This record gives sequence, C-alpha cells and structure tokens, in this order.
Amino acid sequence: MDWSTLLGLLAGSLTTASFVPQVLKTWRSRSARDISALWLITFITGISLWLIYGLLILSLPIILANGITLALTLLILFFKLQFRG
Amino acid sequence: MDWSTLLGLLAGSLTTASFVPQVLKTWRSRSARDISALWLITFITGISLWLIYGLLILSLPIILANGITLALTLLILFFKLQFRG
Repeated sequence: MDWSTLLGLLAGSLTTASFVPQVLKTWRSRSARDISALWLITFITGISLWLIYGLLILSLPIILANGITLALTLLILFFKLQFRG
Repeated sequence: MDWSTLLGLLAGSLTTASFVPQVLKTWRSRSARDISALWLITFITGISLWLIYGLLILSLPIILANGITLALTLLILFFKLQFRG
C-alpha cells in the first residue's frame, strides 16, 4: 500500500470517527437545537450517494467510511427529531 | 464523463454544500453549544488530510470539496469559540 492511500484511509477514519463524539454529546445533553436540520438532511443525502458511488466502483474504504457515517448521522437526525426542544 | 463519476461529484457537492446552512444557523442563533468541539476538531483534521490526499493524487473534485468544507467547518469552529456559553 502506498503512502497516499494510507493518508486517504486515515482521513476517512477521522472524518467517520468524528461523528461518535457528536452522537454521544447529543445523547447526553438531550439537545440538538443548534444542529441544523438542513445540514443533516443534505449531508445524509450526500453520504448516501457516496455510499452508492463506493458500491458502484467497488471501493471498500468509501463503502465502509460512508456506511458508518450514514449510520451515525441518521442517529443524530433521530435524536434531533426526538429531543424537539 | 461516466455515470459513476457524475454521482461522485453530486455526492461531494451535497456533503460540501450541506455545511452552508449550519454556518448560517450558528451565525444567526449565536449559539453552538449543541455542536461537539471534539467532532469539529476531529472532522477538521480528517478533512485537512483529505485535502492533502487530493493534492497528492491531483484530484480536483477531492481538492475542491475538501477545501470548501475545510473553510466552512473552520468558520463553525470560530463561531463555537466566539459564542462560548
């Protein structure tokens, strides 16, 4: 594996893992008022297309990164709807 | 340009553009309490690596998408620090 591929995998791991602290914060605080619903819905749509793109070109890193990110951001959207306040 | 490349460009545009409503919401509400600082910092680090990766493999879509996303998320981080409380 060459140097730049390793960098891409690290980048993908960070942008994916970054959503875990946001899920935990939203879950603990029971508040998502400052999180834009429009950001969430547009971002989730984009991530879903990235996932389909990854499946089309059979790229495991793109499928994994976007699959996990999709699950985490759907969870944030679920909390956003739950903790209406 | 084949079908899957078009899909990748659309996905990248959506995930990039999605941050505009979040920047506007944070700017208008003067509040970023519900946004996780750890998400922001980890995500920004990941996006920066994606940008370097794009420069290494000379991929314009990756450079553009992550360059714009980096600027927008740095703005959210700036607001997060400005609007403490």
